[in-house]
Amino acid sequence: MASPILNRFKQYLPILTWAKTYDRNTATSDLVAAVIVTVMLIPQSLAYALLAGLPAEMGLYASILPLVAYAVFGTSRALAVGPVAVVSLMTAAAVGNLGLSDPLQIAVAAGTLAFISGLILTVLGVLRLGFLANFLSHPVIAGFITASGILIAVSQLKHIFGIKLSGDNLPEQIATFFEHVGETNLITLAIGVAATAFLFWVRKGLKPLLIRSGMKPRLADISAKAGPVAAVVVTTLIAWGFGLSDRGVKVVGDIPMGLPPLTMPSVSPSLWSQLFVPALLISIIGFVESVSVAKTLAAKRRQRISPDQELIGLGTSNIAAAVSGGYPVTGGFSRSVVNFDAGAETPAAGAYTAVGIGLATLLLTPLIYFLPNATLAATIIVAVLSLVDFSILRTAWGYSKVDFVAVAATILLTLGFGVEAGVSAGVLLSIGLHLYKTSRPHIAEVGLVPGTEHFRNIKRHKVETKAHLVTLRVDESLYFANASFLEDYILGRVTCDQPIKEVVLQMTAVNEVDLSALETLEELNHRLKDMGIRLHLSEVKGPVMDRLKRSDLLDHLTGKVYLSQYNAWKELSPAPQDPAAERTSKANAA
Amino acid sequence: MASPILNRFKQYLPILTWAKTYDRNTATSDLVAAVIVTVMLIPQSLAYALLAGLPAEMGLYASILPLVAYAVFGTSRALAVGPVAVVSLMTAAAVGNLGLSDPLQIAVAAGTLAFISGLILTVLGVLRLGFLANFLSHPVIAGFITASGILIAVSQLKHIFGIKLSGDNLPEQIATFFEHVGETNLITLAIGVAATAFLFWVRKGLKPLLIRSGMKPRLADISAKAGPVAAVVVTTLIAWGFGLSDRGVKVVGDIPMGLPPLTMPSVSPSLWSQLFVPALLISIIGFVESVSVAKTLAAKRRQRISPDQELIGLGTSNIAAAVSGGYPVTGGFSRSVVNFDAGAETPAAGAYTAVGIGLATLLLTPLIYFLPNATLAATIIVAVLSLVDFSILRTAWGYSKVDFVAVAATILLTLGFGVEAGVSAGVLLSIGLHLYKTSRPHIAEVGLVPGTEHFRNIKRHKVETKAHLVTLRVDESLYFANASFLEDYILGRVTCDQPIKEVVLQMTAVNEVDLSALETLEELNHRLKDMGIRLHLSEVKGPVMDRLKRSDLLDHLTGKVYLSQYNAWKELSPAPQDPAAERTSKANAA
Repeated sequence: MASPILNRFKQYLPILTWAKTYDRNTATSDLVAAVIVTVMLIPQSLAYALLAGLPAEMGLYASILPLVAYAVFGTSRALAVGPVAVVSLMTAAAVGNLGLSDPLQIAVAAGTLAFISGLILTVLGVLRLGFLANFLSHPVIAGFITASGILIAVSQLKHIFGIKLSGDNLPEQIATFFEHVGETNLITLAIGVAATAFLFWVRKGLKPLLIRSGMKPRLADISAKAGPVAAVVVTTLIAWGFGLSDRGVKVVGDIPMGLPPLTMPSVSPSLWSQLFVPALLISIIGFVESVSVAKTLAAKRRQRISPDQELIGLGTSNIAAAVSGGYPVTGGFSRSVVNFDAGAETPAAGAYTAVGIGLATLLLTPLIYFLPNATLAATIIVAVLSLVDFSILRTAWGYSKVDFVAVAATILLTLGFGVEAGVSAGVLLSIGLHLYKTSRPHIAEVGLVPGTEHFRNIKRHKVETKAHLVTLRVDESLYFANASFLEDYILGRVTCDQPIKEVVLQMTAVNEVDLSALETLEELNHRLKDMGIRLHLSEVKGPVMDRLKRSDLLDHLTGKVYLSQYNAWKELSPAPQDPAAERTSKANAA
Repeated sequence: MASPILNRFKQYLPILTWAKTYDRNTATSDLVAAVIVTVMLIPQSLAYALLAGLPAEMGLYASILPLVAYAVFGTSRALAVGPVAVVSLMTAAAVGNLGLSDPLQIAVAAGTLAFISGLILTVLGVLRLGFLANFLSHPVIAGFITASGILIAVSQLKHIFGIKLSGDNLPEQIATFFEHVGETNLITLAIGVAATAFLFWVRKGLKPLLIRSGMKPRLADISAKAGPVAAVVVTTLIAWGFGLSDRGVKVVGDIPMGLPPLTMPSVSPSLWSQLFVPALLISIIGFVESVSVAKTLAAKRRQRISPDQELIGLGTSNIAAAVSGGYPVTGGFSRSVVNFDAGAETPAAGAYTAVGIGLATLLLTPLIYFLPNATLAATIIVAVLSLVDFSILRTAWGYSKVDFVAVAATILLTLGFGVEAGVSAGVLLSIGLHLYKTSRPHIAEVGLVPGTEHFRNIKRHKVETKAHLVTLRVDESLYFANASFLEDYILGRVTCDQPIKEVVLQMTAVNEVDLSALETLEELNHRLKDMGIRLHLSEVKGPVMDRLKRSDLLDHLTGKVYLSQYNAWKELSPAPQDPAAERTSKANAA
C-alpha cells in the first residue's frame, strides 16, 4: 500500500488522502458551506469580472471549473478559489496594456493570461520553487494591497457616476474623473451611493444588530456577508420596474445561459511575450495571498498545507479557468473564511460550490439582466476598502526605517505608476535594502567583563581591554558583499593604533563564510602579517569550521583558532616578547 | 589648523597630506621609479590602445594627464594608472557595439566612455558608495578575468596572423579565425610567433638567468619586465631595414607628434544612453581591480587607502583621460608592482611618469612608425595569459558548490556572450545564489548535553530531549526571504508530532529580525496557540531584543523570553498539567 509510487501520487493528488474517509457527516457539512458560499459568490464573481474589464459571465465561469481543479489538487481543506479583487485589477492592467478593442480578443487575452499564470504556478510547484514567493516581503505586500485597494475603489467611480474613466494609476484616474464628471448620470449615482451606503451599514451595523436581536455571532456574521445579495435583488427590481436602462443606467444585460464554453488560450508568441511578466506577477501575488489564507485556516484545525502542492493546486485552477471561459483566479480571503466558518471540512465543499454556480449560470442569468453596474461597483468598493490599511506605515516606521522605505516606495509607485511597476519595484527594493543592510554589518569591539568569562561591547559596558590586543565581534555572516567592509574596518582600526599586535575575530554570529570572504580573510591575514600583526579566530561554529578546514586559511593563519574567546584572551593577554617563541605553541591549540 | 573645513579638504585632496613632508630623498626615489615605469609603459600603452581598437597614440595620451589627476586625488602611494588589458577589451566591446566606422567618431565614443565612467566613479566616491563594488564577488571576478584573458589573447591572433578577425565572444572569434586563416601573412606570422616566444622566454627564463649571473633578484625582476622594450626595438629595426610594411606587414604607422590634444566628450543623449551600462561595468571592474592592487601594496608599508577616495581618484583620472584624447583607465597590476618595487614613495612618481610619457609623445613617435602590430599583439598575449587561471574552479568546487556555480557560469557566459553579458550575469547570479542560500537556513533541533548547560544538534550528539518540548536553533538572521521557511518547518514539525506543547526558538545566531520575519513570528505564535502550543524565545541578542520590544510580539507571545536556553529547559521540562496555572508564572519571567 505505502509504496513510493503511491506516496508520490498521494502527494500530487491530495484528494486521495481525504476522499478515503469521506462520509455522510462530512458531506452534509460541506454541502451547507457550499450553499452559503455560492450565494455570496454570485454577485462577487460578476463584480470582479467587471473590475477586470471583462464580460460579467467570465466571473461566473471562473468560479466553476477552477474550484473542481482545486478540490482535486489543493491541500487546504477550506480555501475557496475564484476571481479576487487584486488579481482582477492586475488582469485589467495587463489586458489593458495590450490596447485591444475587440471584446472577443480581450476575452481570449484574459484566458491566455490565466493559462500562462497556471503554467508558471504548476511548473514552480513541480520544481518545488514555492520559496521564490518569499522574496515578496510582508511590508511590500501590505503596501501593494493597500495601494491596489485605492486604485480599485477609484476605478469603480466610473460605474457609480456612470461616466468614462481610464488609466491604471491614480494620477490618470483622477485626471479623467474630473474630465468626465460633468457627464454624470444622476440616477446611476443615486443607485451607486445608496448601494454603497447600504453595504457599509450591513458590514458595520447589521451584524451587531443581529447579535443584539439574539442571533448567534457566527450566523450573524454569515448573514451580514449575504448583504450584497440583498442589494443586488433590490436594485435589480428597481431598475426593471422603472425601466432605468432606458434612462442611461448601465445594467449587466444579456448573459449567455448555459454552462461555460470550452475555450482555447491563444498560442501567439507575441501575445505570450507581452503577457509573461504580468502573468508572473499575478502568479506570485495570487499565490502569496492564497497561501497566507490557507495557512491561517489550516492552523486553526492543526492541519497542514504544502506550499509547493498549493502552487500545483492554484496552477491547475488557472489552467481550468483558461479552458472554460474564465480568467486568472486565486484563493480569496473573505470567501474562504465564510467557507471555513460555515463548516466546510474538505475541498469537496469547493466542488459543490462549483455545482451551485453552474446551476446559476444555467438558470439565473436572465434574472440579472437589469442588475445595475453601479450595484456591483458598490460591492467592490466596500470589499476593497477593507484592504486599505495604512497602519503598516506606522508599524514599519516604529520598527525599522529600512522596512518603512520599502513599504512607502511600494505604495507610492503602485499609486503613481500602476500595479506592475509597484510590485516589481517593491521586490527589487526589498532585496536591495536587505543586501545594503548586510553589506555593512555591525562590528563590535569587545572586552572582558571583569570577574567573568564574558565579553561585551566596549562602547556599551565597562570592560577590560589590552593595548596590544583587539577583539572584534562581527554580527553577520561573512559573504562577498560585506567581506571588504570587514577588511577595511580592521585595517583602519590597526593603522591608526600602532601598539596593536594581535587581532582576534570572535565568530559567534558568523553562520557562513563564503569563498569571497574566505579569500578576504586570507588577504587580511597577509596584510596584517606585513604589518607585524597576528590574526586569530575564536568561537567558530561547527559548519563554518568544517568548511574552513577544506581551505588553506588555517595553514597560513599567523595566529590560532580558539574554542572560546576567553581562551584567546588568557593566552594572548601577556604582550608578546619574542614572536618566534609564541609561534611554537601554535601547534598545540585549536 | 585642524579645522573641519581643512580636514574635509585633506580628505578629498590626499596630495595635501604627503606634499607637506616631500623632500629631496623622496623625490629621488620617485624619479627612479618613474623612469622604469615609463620605459615599461610605452609599449604597453600602444598595445592596449590597439586591443581597444583605437589609434595607438590614444594609449599614450591615456598615460599622461590621468596620472597627474591620480597624483592629486588618489590615496595609494604606489598605484600606477593608465590603460589596462581588461578595461581595454571592455572598451573595444562597448565601442564596437555602436557599429561606427569613422575613426574620429570611434575616438570620440571612447573618450565619452571614459568621461561617463569618470563621472560615475566620482559621484559614487562623493556619495561614499564604494561598497557597491563589493557585490562583485571574488569568484565572479576571478572567473571574469580568466575568461577575459582568453578573449583578449584570441582577439590578438588577428595581428599575429595578419588577418581579419571579429566578434566579442569566443564562438564568433573562432569562426572568423577559420574563415580568414587562409589569408595569413607569413612574414607577420613569423614576427608574431618569434616575439611571443621571446617574451615568454624573458618572463620564464631571463630572470633566473640574470639571477644566476649575479644580478640582485629585484633588479633582475625589473630588467625582465623591460623585455617588451627589447622586442619593440628589434622588430621595429627589422621591419624598417627590410621594408616589411611594403610586404603586407601591418605597422603602427604615423603617430601625431606633440602633446595630447584637448578633446571634448560627446554630449549626444543617444550616445550616453548606449554607453551608460558599459561605462558602469567598466567603472566597477576597473575600481575593483585597482583597489585590490592598492590595498595589497598599502599593507606592505602599513599604509591605508580609502576606497571612497580611490573612487574619486580614478574618476578624475578618467575625466582627465576624456579631455586629453585618452580612453578609460584604471590602476594596473603589473605597472603598480614595478612602480612599488622600483621604490616609488608618493603619487608624485606617477606625475613624473606622466612627464616621461609626454616627452615620448613629443620626441619618440617617429621612431615607432615601423613597429609591427604583431609585436604589440605578442606583448598583450604574454601579459594576459598570466591572468588566465582556472584554479579558481578547483578551489570553488572544493570549498562551496554555490560559489562554483557562480564562477563556472561567469566564465562560460563571458566566453560565450562577451564581457558585458558575463559580468552582469555573474553579479546577478552571486546575489541570487546568496539569497537562495539564506532563504533556506540551517535549522538544528537541539537537546541538552547531559551534565552540562550546553545544547547541541540532536542529529550530531547524544543529548537529552523531552517529548512535549522541542527547541530549534536557527542559524541565520530572520528576514523576508526565509521567514516562511522557518514557519513551514515549525508547523511541519509540530503537526506530525502530536505530544508537542512547547516550542523554543534559540536565537543565538539571529543577528536581525526584519518586519516580515516579525509578522511571521506573530502569525506563528497565533497558529501554534490555535494548536494549543506555546512559543518561547531564548538567547535573543541585545540589538534584536531592542527592536522586538518596540513591537507587539512580546505582548502576544504565548510563552516567555529566556535569557539562556538552559533556563528555558529547566523551567519547561516538567510536562504542563494545567496550562492556566503555567500562564500565571509568565509575568515573572523575561
